[in-house]
Amino acid sequence: MAHPVTPVSPPLKDELDIVIPTIRNLDFLEMWRPFFQPYHLIIVQDGDPTKTIKVPEGFDYELYNRNDVNRVLGPKASCISFKDSACRCFGFLVSKKKYIFTIDDDCFVAKDPSGKEINALAQHIQNVLTPSTPFFFNTLYDPYREGADFVRGYPFSLREGVPTAISHGLWLNIPDYDAPTQLVKPRERNTRYVDAVMTIPKGTLFPMCGMNLAFDRELIGPAMYFGLMGDGQPIGRYDDMWAGWCCKVICDHLSLGVKTGLPYLWHSKASNPFVNLKKEYKGIFWQEEIIPFFQSIVLPKECTTVQNCYLELSKMVKEKLGPVDPYFQKLGDAMVTWIEAWDELNPPAQAAATALPTAVKKDGPTSKSK
Amino acid sequence: MAHPVTPVSPPLKDELDIVIPTIRNLDFLEMWRPFFQPYHLIIVQDGDPTKTIKVPEGFDYELYNRNDVNRVLGPKASCISFKDSACRCFGFLVSKKKYIFTIDDDCFVAKDPSGKEINALAQHIQNVLTPSTPFFFNTLYDPYREGADFVRGYPFSLREGVPTAISHGLWLNIPDYDAPTQLVKPRERNTRYVDAVMTIPKGTLFPMCGMNLAFDRELIGPAMYFGLMGDGQPIGRYDDMWAGWCCKVICDHLSLGVKTGLPYLWHSKASNPFVNLKKEYKGIFWQEEIIPFFQSIVLPKECTTVQNCYLELSKMVKEKLGPVDPYFQKLGDAMVTWIEAWDELNPPAQAAATALPTAVKKDGPTSKSK
Repeated sequence: MAHPVTPVSPPLKDELDIVIPTIRNLDFLEMWRPFFQPYHLIIVQDGDPTKTIKVPEGFDYELYNRNDVNRVLGPKASCISFKDSACRCFGFLVSKKKYIFTIDDDCFVAKDPSGKEINALAQHIQNVLTPSTPFFFNTLYDPYREGADFVRGYPFSLREGVPTAISHGLWLNIPDYDAPTQLVKPRERNTRYVDAVMTIPKGTLFPMCGMNLAFDRELIGPAMYFGLMGDGQPIGRYDDMWAGWCCKVICDHLSLGVKTGLPYLWHSKASNPFVNLKKEYKGIFWQEEIIPFFQSIVLPKECTTVQNCYLELSKMVKEKLGPVDPYFQKLGDAMVTWIEAWDELNPPAQAAATALPTAVKKDGPTSKSK
Repeated sequence: MAHPVTPVSPPLKDELDIVIPTIRNLDFLEMWRPFFQPYHLIIVQDGDPTKTIKVPEGFDYELYNRNDVNRVLGPKASCISFKDSACRCFGFLVSKKKYIFTIDDDCFVAKDPSGKEINALAQHIQNVLTPSTPFFFNTLYDPYREGADFVRGYPFSLREGVPTAISHGLWLNIPDYDAPTQLVKPRERNTRYVDAVMTIPKGTLFPMCGMNLAFDRELIGPAMYFGLMGDGQPIGRYDDMWAGWCCKVICDHLSLGVKTGLPYLWHSKASNPFVNLKKEYKGIFWQEEIIPFFQSIVLPKECTTVQNCYLELSKMVKEKLGPVDPYFQKLGDAMVTWIEAWDELNPPAQAAATALPTAVKKDGPTSKSK
């Protein structure tokens, strides 16, 4: 794989971290090298901390295993899941950058219909740097894309849009199906390249997948908590969903935007549907209660920060979902712990620029100069 | 143009009318012949009723000019606009079919990225015959399309969807921009083929364009009123927008679906932006009040039919938008007249099947047998 690294400074080079949860050597990075190498990686090693994860040469990274998580967070480490990709949110916590892009290690570079390799990160950056339009639907999709605009009948007062907090990308090949759908349609592959980016309207919930996701940490970071999943928990594979529902109601409350659509990446292999069913089955029941819960949420006007909103939400979770299962009491508590950890590692007074060098930061071989 | 007519009976052949408002000879139908010829056309001739509109040979149609509108509706003809494509809704009124497809006469057959001619009508039929999913967003778009499904995290209880009332199609080439955008971007063309159909979520308004539109008359017909536009009115080019906003709040109230996206057609020429500005400029102010009005509407639970909803809406229009301009008083009255006309021509007790033959129906040369 002899991709040359692009010589010009890539967009947001010093303002974006790539967060990768993993249990294996990161060979998949070879394919992403031309796009990712200029950026800093935060690798969250899940599972056995004594195992050594190999990272291809030339990448600038910091790596945290479970021992590091425990060391950095102390007793608050309880809010970080173990043996589940939910552990990725630890990377969001320790990053000091404005933007995060997170990707699964079984996702490769996809091609657009013309055969060109898709720079997923560049598209996410474009998505988060242009506004969202959650208050009114534009039938030609993203009005800020080249060759598009707002159509007739779109109120002019809404055309400035709102800041974009989240960019949710999609997957070609293996679609992100639940276990029952995997079992029923084992051979279904997503081959449809839909050339669109769109804002998910205010008041509408969506299933956020963590495989291919970017967000503005300053705008929504404290709500990007992937919950309690995996080891010792009654549920898995709802980490990103949970984060998505929490984030969406908070974005709606704070007038922030959530986009979905481009970029695609190539999701290489389906996880085992039987294992997935075991992880998911409680979620399949619970989501029937969780969705109406989130749909009914009205956050108080006094909640003007993501942290305030999230703490308020944690109370509602305990009160309204607690009766569904004791798990939600525990989850509500973990949401509070997460915010405490967030505020500890990201003191509000600290400006983003001065926060860059930290104790846990290790410089990799890539130059940081612009 | 020697397109052979497809020999098999096309879908919904006896259940769908194509409504075309026009002021000119319908040469554009030649290009649509392979797709439209099996269907019945309702042509609404706008402007001078003494002019003869030529319809290409072989089409089965009925044609109404302004004298016919006056004859059929008597004093209620006041609710049908003149010298504006809003007159198309007269065709919706006199149709006795379950489905309507309406198209502008400057719209031609578009090609998909593979170069294949798009059968817009077939796609609309597929759209209206499959459910909509307004309560939760599916990130892989229409879950009922081949090769797609509901993604992980989509509540199973919502996967049956709701009946689809409206299918809103798009346009390649000339985008449907307002006059200011036309003036600013005279050369912009829509070349992006977005291979998606999606449900517009509940609670979200959209700008509905009448150029390429299908709907289920039985589900939403009485709300598909294109308002008072054109001759003698202070506004034009808001006919379809008005219908769309009214329809959407009623669909949301009655749990009916609205889809947008495919099919595309080829919109051949931009209308004059200066003329458009004259027609639109009051609308550009008014829509800033109209949109919050529609966003705030809560229809009473007792309104369980489209007619009830629409009459309730007419009262709200007069009360809340009347203060914006006396025009809305007149429009509110016209909405009531429209419902009276609808009920007169579409008596509720009359089943769709027995309603087919009517006094105004003229049989064309195309056989109606399946």
